[in-house]
Amino acid sequence: MSAALSRIAPLLKSAAPGTTVTTAGWVRTRRDSKQGFSFVELNDGSCMANLQLVIDSGVPGYADVIKHVTTGSSLRVSGELKESPGANQRVELHVQSLELLGEADADKYPLQKKRHSFEFLREIAHLRPRTNTFGAIARVRNCVCRAIHDFFQQRDFLHVQTPLITTSDCEGAGEMFTVTTLLDPDREAKGFKPGEIDYSHDFFGKKASLTVSGQLEGEIFACAVGPIYTFGPTFRAENSNTTRHLAEFWMIEPEAPFYELVDDMQLAEDFIKFVIRACLEHCAEDMQFFNDRIDNTVLSTMQNILDHQFKRVSYTEAVALLEKSGKTWEYPVAWGINLQAEHERWLTEDHFKQPIIVYDYPRTLKPFYMYCNDDGKTVRAMDVLVPRVGEIIGGSQREHRLDVLESRLAESGLDPAAYWWYLDLRRYGSVPHSGFGLGLERMILLLTGMQNIRDVIPFPRTPKNAEF
Amino acid sequence: MSAALSRIAPLLKSAAPGTTVTTAGWVRTRRDSKQGFSFVELNDGSCMANLQLVIDSGVPGYADVIKHVTTGSSLRVSGELKESPGANQRVELHVQSLELLGEADADKYPLQKKRHSFEFLREIAHLRPRTNTFGAIARVRNCVCRAIHDFFQQRDFLHVQTPLITTSDCEGAGEMFTVTTLLDPDREAKGFKPGEIDYSHDFFGKKASLTVSGQLEGEIFACAVGPIYTFGPTFRAENSNTTRHLAEFWMIEPEAPFYELVDDMQLAEDFIKFVIRACLEHCAEDMQFFNDRIDNTVLSTMQNILDHQFKRVSYTEAVALLEKSGKTWEYPVAWGINLQAEHERWLTEDHFKQPIIVYDYPRTLKPFYMYCNDDGKTVRAMDVLVPRVGEIIGGSQREHRLDVLESRLAESGLDPAAYWWYLDLRRYGSVPHSGFGLGLERMILLLTGMQNIRDVIPFPRTPKNAEF
Repeated sequence: MSAALSRIAPLLKSAAPGTTVTTAGWVRTRRDSKQGFSFVELNDGSCMANLQLVIDSGVPGYADVIKHVTTGSSLRVSGELKESPGANQRVELHVQSLELLGEADADKYPLQKKRHSFEFLREIAHLRPRTNTFGAIARVRNCVCRAIHDFFQQRDFLHVQTPLITTSDCEGAGEMFTVTTLLDPDREAKGFKPGEIDYSHDFFGKKASLTVSGQLEGEIFACAVGPIYTFGPTFRAENSNTTRHLAEFWMIEPEAPFYELVDDMQLAEDFIKFVIRACLEHCAEDMQFFNDRIDNTVLSTMQNILDHQFKRVSYTEAVALLEKSGKTWEYPVAWGINLQAEHERWLTEDHFKQPIIVYDYPRTLKPFYMYCNDDGKTVRAMDVLVPRVGEIIGGSQREHRLDVLESRLAESGLDPAAYWWYLDLRRYGSVPHSGFGLGLERMILLLTGMQNIRDVIPFPRTPKNAEF
Repeated sequence: MSAALSRIAPLLKSAAPGTTVTTAGWVRTRRDSKQGFSFVELNDGSCMANLQLVIDSGVPGYADVIKHVTTGSSLRVSGELKESPGANQRVELHVQSLELLGEADADKYPLQKKRHSFEFLREIAHLRPRTNTFGAIARVRNCVCRAIHDFFQQRDFLHVQTPLITTSDCEGAGEMFTVTTLLDPDREAKGFKPGEIDYSHDFFGKKASLTVSGQLEGEIFACAVGPIYTFGPTFRAENSNTTRHLAEFWMIEPEAPFYELVDDMQLAEDFIKFVIRACLEHCAEDMQFFNDRIDNTVLSTMQNILDHQFKRVSYTEAVALLEKSGKTWEYPVAWGINLQAEHERWLTEDHFKQPIIVYDYPRTLKPFYMYCNDDGKTVRAMDVLVPRVGEIIGGSQREHRLDVLESRLAESGLDPAAYWWYLDLRRYGSVPHSGFGLGLERMILLLTGMQNIRDVIPFPRTPKNAEF
């Protein structure tokens, strides 16, 4: 059945008038003319645009079927493509046979042709991919994912799957979910006693959690097979109900041996530009939609990012600029503070007006695994900041000197025994190496202009919400 | 630093003698000649083969450095490529400058040049990617992942990320892990009382688990934007200590609207052949290694799969063949039984001697979501069986008729209210659709000839084991 079907995107783009085709999809609208024709807009998700069907009342079965051809119903149709007299499309399909696959009761189908709020659509996340906006997000998301793989594969980075369930903790990058079988109905039998939790009876024999980062395991492979990247889900059990936080999101984490911080920064810049170029090239129609309907700075922001070499600004320089800005900050600025969103946005949007990379942060602000500079005060960390979204990538050169790493662990109050294998990487054939992390959903926010991160992931997980 | 480095694979393959290069990697062996030369085998993970370094004792710093150039240590070297007099390599590097990056104490480094058992290497999973076998597995695994994306992207399937944390249950496909914050130290404050568990106080407000399949959510997107595929981790909390089971593994699940079972079977066949061809083409050296060192039927099995159209065999035919085989089975054969590994292996290895697809299984054996045939007895399920590994893919056409699906839910004792959104897909614009699942690690077992699934995933998770 499928083999005989044409998809709508290539039909609209390049199929020759006169061609006989069979296609299928979902009805967006139907309009009946007084001359005994029906015009149906059919969409199959391959592109934003619909295929216009022209259905003569003489088509076999018309009288029985046409009343069920309502918004949301599904059709399979065959006919001849003809040049369209309308301005909105190159071709239209003159239907010769028509099959109703599935009805959509007009009194009940929630997605009638009108504007729905994103809040409402989140309640029907199983239907929202059928709308223009969420169809476009799905296509852009796919394009980003493909570009990410292409970028790293072209550079001979190996795709590595780091574990999701972990008994390590990437230095308290966030609160973690516990993964357990102790709460099974037969938990008493498994050693669960009120008032105490004996994880030796749990599935993994010790407390296990969902990972907050694959970095430490990524370093293992980078220090063995060369540059690698991960592409997988990560988790935060933080009770944050904001438009920027998810309990489950996807991260891409490259890690490369022999890379120092300057190499890492260049990789990050090349990476972001590559992904943006791919979307502008392969999702032009969808990107135009986001610019027209969601945020009219989407395309200019993309162009701004592509047009500029990302400016490298040390943390120390950045703080000096913020202090000299004459602005009043909600969070006062001084060397040693964490840069807040207001500071980052001012630097990239107001001062530099282009993407920047802030590097060499105070060591007290950063995790134990970052490379200590000779100044004794800073570590080789970097954050990429872009206009309208702020921080989009965070990375660092990793500390590869065993003695320095051990003293940093001690300084951070962490137990070196828990990091025995991470330390082994520094004991045996240690090499300089660096990496970064990109939150996939942050990248989609940047590309689409969408405001709420719950709308750029298929099924968002947030406090009190894991429906679908 | 990195920009100036050449990787070893392209040097060995195609770099011109006379070229001056800088490279870096890990020492496999060193041998000192009486004529004042050292020969070092250097590996950087880009390929199985090592680059031979020829280091004259006149190289600056030689006397200080060379004694630390031991197995496992890391080096950066520059020099001139020359044609090699040896039979094992086209070129070798005559070193002009030499920098020891990291030592590897020969008394302590666990990976000395000798054969280690896979059991031992599992204990040092942070170092095993530095061995020939695990380096090759990493490269083949990457090649498979890339081929999977290429296959679906070339066919305009969209990559969709379905959720990991879920409150649904894909029809008891397996025991599930609970994801919770109730076991935090402050659990009493969150409403956890001995003897009862009140999930309304948990992070998601109800009992949440790690997914066993993204299929149901994949169907949502397939019924909106066209064919899609997922590529993500899935979980089973089964206490199975076997060479074939993992608590965490990666699955690829395509789902396509308008596909019936015949289309699904063809997609699965094309898919497996595409992935195998990619590995034979891009990982020829590694595949030869597996054939030589791990299992000498690897290459002939691959060729057998490529050479044959997969034979379609109905479950009913398969049972008749098994009954007529004259074999004595551990699990007796009759229409209605689940085919066991012994049956599947006999069919594909002994009887047909090629890959087969068994389809139309008894409905009583299969989940509620599979399409019921008109015979009232079977459903449109299919399993792809290949020699040496057995079942590698399982799939089905999905039941898209609302009334049939509702009665199947009832028959299975499932609560329709829990499947409200899944039923909505059949209420509004329902279309025939089909999909399948491939376990990534099963595919790697097939390609490498490795025997234990714990050896083909970077960091295996099994009962009592979530180290690294």
